[in-house]
Amino acid sequence: MGGSKSDPERLDEFAMIARHFAPLSKGETGALGLLDDGAVLDVPTDQQLIVTTDTLVDGVHFLPDTSAADIATKSLAANVSDLASMGAGAKWIFLNLQLPEKINDDWLAEFAESLKAGLAQCSCVLAGGDTVRTPGPLAISITAMGMVDQGRALKRSGAKPGDDIWVSGTLGDAKLGLDLLQGNIGLGEAEHAEFLKRRHLRPVARTGLGQSLGHNALANACIDISDGLVADLGHICVASGVSAVLQMEDVPLSPAARTLGRAGELAALGGGDDYELLFAADAQARATIEALGQSLGLAISRIGEITDEATHSVKVRNSSGAEIAVPDGGWRHF
Amino acid sequence: MGGSKSDPERLDEFAMIARHFAPLSKGETGALGLLDDGAVLDVPTDQQLIVTTDTLVDGVHFLPDTSAADIATKSLAANVSDLASMGAGAKWIFLNLQLPEKINDDWLAEFAESLKAGLAQCSCVLAGGDTVRTPGPLAISITAMGMVDQGRALKRSGAKPGDDIWVSGTLGDAKLGLDLLQGNIGLGEAEHAEFLKRRHLRPVARTGLGQSLGHNALANACIDISDGLVADLGHICVASGVSAVLQMEDVPLSPAARTLGRAGELAALGGGDDYELLFAADAQARATIEALGQSLGLAISRIGEITDEATHSVKVRNSSGAEIAVPDGGWRHF
Repeated sequence: MGGSKSDPERLDEFAMIARHFAPLSKGETGALGLLDDGAVLDVPTDQQLIVTTDTLVDGVHFLPDTSAADIATKSLAANVSDLASMGAGAKWIFLNLQLPEKINDDWLAEFAESLKAGLAQCSCVLAGGDTVRTPGPLAISITAMGMVDQGRALKRSGAKPGDDIWVSGTLGDAKLGLDLLQGNIGLGEAEHAEFLKRRHLRPVARTGLGQSLGHNALANACIDISDGLVADLGHICVASGVSAVLQMEDVPLSPAARTLGRAGELAALGGGDDYELLFAADAQARATIEALGQSLGLAISRIGEITDEATHSVKVRNSSGAEIAVPDGGWRHF
Repeated sequence: MGGSKSDPERLDEFAMIARHFAPLSKGETGALGLLDDGAVLDVPTDQQLIVTTDTLVDGVHFLPDTSAADIATKSLAANVSDLASMGAGAKWIFLNLQLPEKINDDWLAEFAESLKAGLAQCSCVLAGGDTVRTPGPLAISITAMGMVDQGRALKRSGAKPGDDIWVSGTLGDAKLGLDLLQGNIGLGEAEHAEFLKRRHLRPVARTGLGQSLGHNALANACIDISDGLVADLGHICVASGVSAVLQMEDVPLSPAARTLGRAGELAALGGGDDYELLFAADAQARATIEALGQSLGLAISRIGEITDEATHSVKVRNSSGAEIAVPDGGWRHF
């Protein structure tokens, strides 16, 4: 965790690392207490390293009044979810923080505490990073690393015509939670509103599912839903050279999203940041996948089929077989 | 290279990755063409992975009018130098770009072209990343990864009383180049001025030296000079539980820096961003280290000695043995 050369309070920065971040490296001697130029890590033989990285910017990827704890949770989940979508659990993260002047020690303490809890949940440690001052907005880049058995990484490519399309959890909740936080929609039941906001603020990566799908070679293609169901399924289609048809009535909506009717359905198709896993699998794997969902205590829904149509596009049908117009796939945060 | 969910021109972003960055992943199939959620990498058996990361912010770590090509060179060199200081060459980098609105395709083309040239020089590839829009300044985070033989990573700890202190190249040039660019100093000879500016704008990591020191277990402790000679030697002293004495007349200055007299000496002691390697080694290794410098065509100077003084401090002596007052070690960029 190289101390920044640009921090106006250089000594404070070393103290900051020692106080807030060094404890998060506990258990990994190769992190060298975040005191050296880098980390020295051992990758087990017969495993491949999966590496992913994501940047979140204040006012772009989260609302300006988001708490430090929620920012930490979301930054970590976005990266851990990318690892899950490739079949890996998280083992190490590297944290790049760009801190504006307004960030104080209390903020850092809350951020680090939340990150620590998130890391503990996925048996992962902070192995390095960099902190710098910025005249711009707060920004967090995390680079996350994990392992898969040799040759068992899940990819976006590999979906075949005839494959079932599956998705975990419920969709659209995070988008509706954002709409609620922004005051764009209202919701009568406080319990539903809290659920949706929480889905936006504190996403959970589906690591157990991703690891099982990869380890058991159950999925032919996989992606996590960060851009939205239709957009992310589109990525699988393009990467795999296939198309897809979804059945709207099979797309899983939470009870909270259902109360919003058509808005709930649109959020499920186009809203991002749910961090559920979307994957294509052989039809023969149906019983195994359903059993896997039960063993994980996680709903896994079969929502459509991969086709050989040459357009590499995603169609959505209603219960009478008519095609539903899909809102533009290009999901934006705000 | 996950496409950002927040780019106002989302399709343009996929085109940007395909046009400018995907070519930089050539040669590493595990980068998956920068099209997937992450990279799938193979770490050879018997090797350890070294990972380091650095963030550079416009106006903080480089002057606002720095060219795209120079920004790419410096971002890469800062990270590759950290790997070199641990004994590793660079194998993969991950690039997080925060782009303000003003960044256009020409800028990206120049940045990518320069990065490509830098990567080619160190036989390294771009294996992933993330690009997002920001309302703030341009910022570049690079996470660089390389390998060392098992147990051969160089660290800041390990220096012992009686060790020689060595440094590569010449010191203070980058600071003087920055002073020139900012108009804080003037220099008669154009050739000297160009040399110093170039040392600031286009640093070169000492990868060959770092790899040899690590592979042959020649250095007991090593660091790259990014904060300044005295400050970085201080990091070694603290990490190793030792102190150090430097001889000012042995600190290597370039002919250009020498023309500046006392200002040149102060820059050599306190100026940062030279990215030379500073290391401690057994006195018995002198002949081997001198031969290594000759074989690399790189000046390596013996500049002092590690002592057992309990203060964990750095002293600088002049040729008559008197102690020189050292400017505060806390080097700031501007």
